[in-house]
Amino acid sequence: MSKQCKELTLRATAKFLKKRDNFAILTHSSPDGDTLGAAYALYYGLKAMGKKAEVLCPDIIPSKYSYFSFTTDHISGDNLTVVAVDVADSKLLGALGEEFGDRVELCIDHHISNTRYAENLLLDSKASAACEIIYELLVKLKAKINDVTAKALYTGIATDTGCFKYSNVTAKTHMIAAELIKYDIDTAEINRLMFDTKSKNLLQLEKMVLDTAEYHFNDKCILLAVTAEMQEKTGCSGPDLEGIAIISRSVEGVLAGITVKQIGEREFKISLRTFPPLDAVQICGKLGGGGHKAAAGATVEGTLDEVKEKILAAVGENMEKANVWSSADK
Amino acid sequence: MSKQCKELTLRATAKFLKKRDNFAILTHSSPDGDTLGAAYALYYGLKAMGKKAEVLCPDIIPSKYSYFSFTTDHISGDNLTVVAVDVADSKLLGALGEEFGDRVELCIDHHISNTRYAENLLLDSKASAACEIIYELLVKLKAKINDVTAKALYTGIATDTGCFKYSNVTAKTHMIAAELIKYDIDTAEINRLMFDTKSKNLLQLEKMVLDTAEYHFNDKCILLAVTAEMQEKTGCSGPDLEGIAIISRSVEGVLAGITVKQIGEREFKISLRTFPPLDAVQICGKLGGGGHKAAAGATVEGTLDEVKEKILAAVGENMEKANVWSSADK
Repeated sequence: MSKQCKELTLRATAKFLKKRDNFAILTHSSPDGDTLGAAYALYYGLKAMGKKAEVLCPDIIPSKYSYFSFTTDHISGDNLTVVAVDVADSKLLGALGEEFGDRVELCIDHHISNTRYAENLLLDSKASAACEIIYELLVKLKAKINDVTAKALYTGIATDTGCFKYSNVTAKTHMIAAELIKYDIDTAEINRLMFDTKSKNLLQLEKMVLDTAEYHFNDKCILLAVTAEMQEKTGCSGPDLEGIAIISRSVEGVLAGITVKQIGEREFKISLRTFPPLDAVQICGKLGGGGHKAAAGATVEGTLDEVKEKILAAVGENMEKANVWSSADK
Repeated sequence: MSKQCKELTLRATAKFLKKRDNFAILTHSSPDGDTLGAAYALYYGLKAMGKKAEVLCPDIIPSKYSYFSFTTDHISGDNLTVVAVDVADSKLLGALGEEFGDRVELCIDHHISNTRYAENLLLDSKASAACEIIYELLVKLKAKINDVTAKALYTGIATDTGCFKYSNVTAKTHMIAAELIKYDIDTAEINRLMFDTKSKNLLQLEKMVLDTAEYHFNDKCILLAVTAEMQEKTGCSGPDLEGIAIISRSVEGVLAGITVKQIGEREFKISLRTFPPLDAVQICGKLGGGGHKAAAGATVEGTLDEVKEKILAAVGENMEKANVWSSADK
């Protein structure tokens, strides 16, 4: 988008919100705990300030977030300020994009990759979650934080940090958590729902996937396959399968964890997780994909065996280059 | 033990430590991140104060803690002050019990069940981990905290809170984490090693265990079995199997997660995890076991099928009593 995007400070953003009265707050598609937490916390904060607001989510909200209080005003009219939270790109507005994509007045985000599609942007790429920024904003606004607001904010921060596990956690993250946990919220129950709950069918799928485990390159590589048949049998797909890639990177001594997921008759999506000195983006680049050094992906056509062969060849090449394995060892 | 145990405040404990010069610091047997973190952090703190100390652990330290700096002085002599950390009962001193069990001058602990075997006791049962108390003690002592000390303390707190997931986490826990994370420590890597790493053999065992999954009482109960054969084949036992009980309580809709682990030819250890309104301690009590409302256990003799039948009968009875299932539904 060529239109000018103005970066705001926290103070300027607070001023911006104070001046306006009716808000549409947008989340990104395939909503997660952070975009939902940020949207609802901002909603509750604005309501506490006597303003009107509506939360709009382009997709159905997964049932695991049903502990959020999903009440929202329904407002309409021309005098509406459109705010997007945790939405790095207007494309991520999904079904809301057509109506709102080019009239987002304020975006509050923590993704360094933000495409600056909004008129005004409050961006803090050091924040672990959009909810960290919303917390600071509510404090700056002196908006009353109550138990539901604290629950929403805690959920967002826990979601985006893997419950304080990842490298995006800072001292500030823990300071904010210390404040939120003082409210009457059951963080243990939130975390159980977010991190330690899976469906019977997903457990069944995980078993099937573990049955496919293959080790290569002196056990430095594990390959897991998720076939179309497994997905049909268990009814598990999309976000359900995120945990599989996590399994592939959890095995001691493994430098390359590969998950090959069938997405069409002759089409597979590869998820690759690597540890140094391997480079996932280099490996997936060979197959026309991309990503980050530790996590990358690619979509590859062929039979399962052909796809396996391609990704294993690319991994083996990277291992030889990095001197962690030699084809002479075979 | 009938001898008098004196409860100390943080300040009195600091005074106690300042007055003495040579310390033996004892951990509990089957050492975990909290007892090790507390022992080494206290060791580093005392060293920074110019004192001599030795860390003594009754068992081999698991390799996953090898990122601790396991240097320790070796001291001896009569003029030794014996301190136990995170040790709730002198029985838990294991191999160190005979030499030190009745001469622990100071115990620093957070278990409400502490048996008061030590001469002096610093007990804070609201602390999520012994490492929380050690942190406060080092601050009170004005002992210099450096990167290794921070790493040890963070490890202990992360261990005992499931990485800030459990209900024992308080605002103070997060405040201390905020201070520790300011040091040059890679918390993401610590957490990966502590929570997201398993051996190839354990993954294999988990697959075998998932193969045994049985659902009962309208899917409100899952039963997983770990046979002697599985343990032999994979070489996994004891602490490796803790994760299995976690699986049993992670399935959506399940109120009773049962793990039956073979420990002898005709002997099985049952681990039960329940959600309200079920009561694990009532259920396991019927089989001669005990524990807490949400987590209990029992050791039962018989064949696998006999043991399954016994625990399922006890679970079914509790379910009927709690009106979450009726035998008429069968």
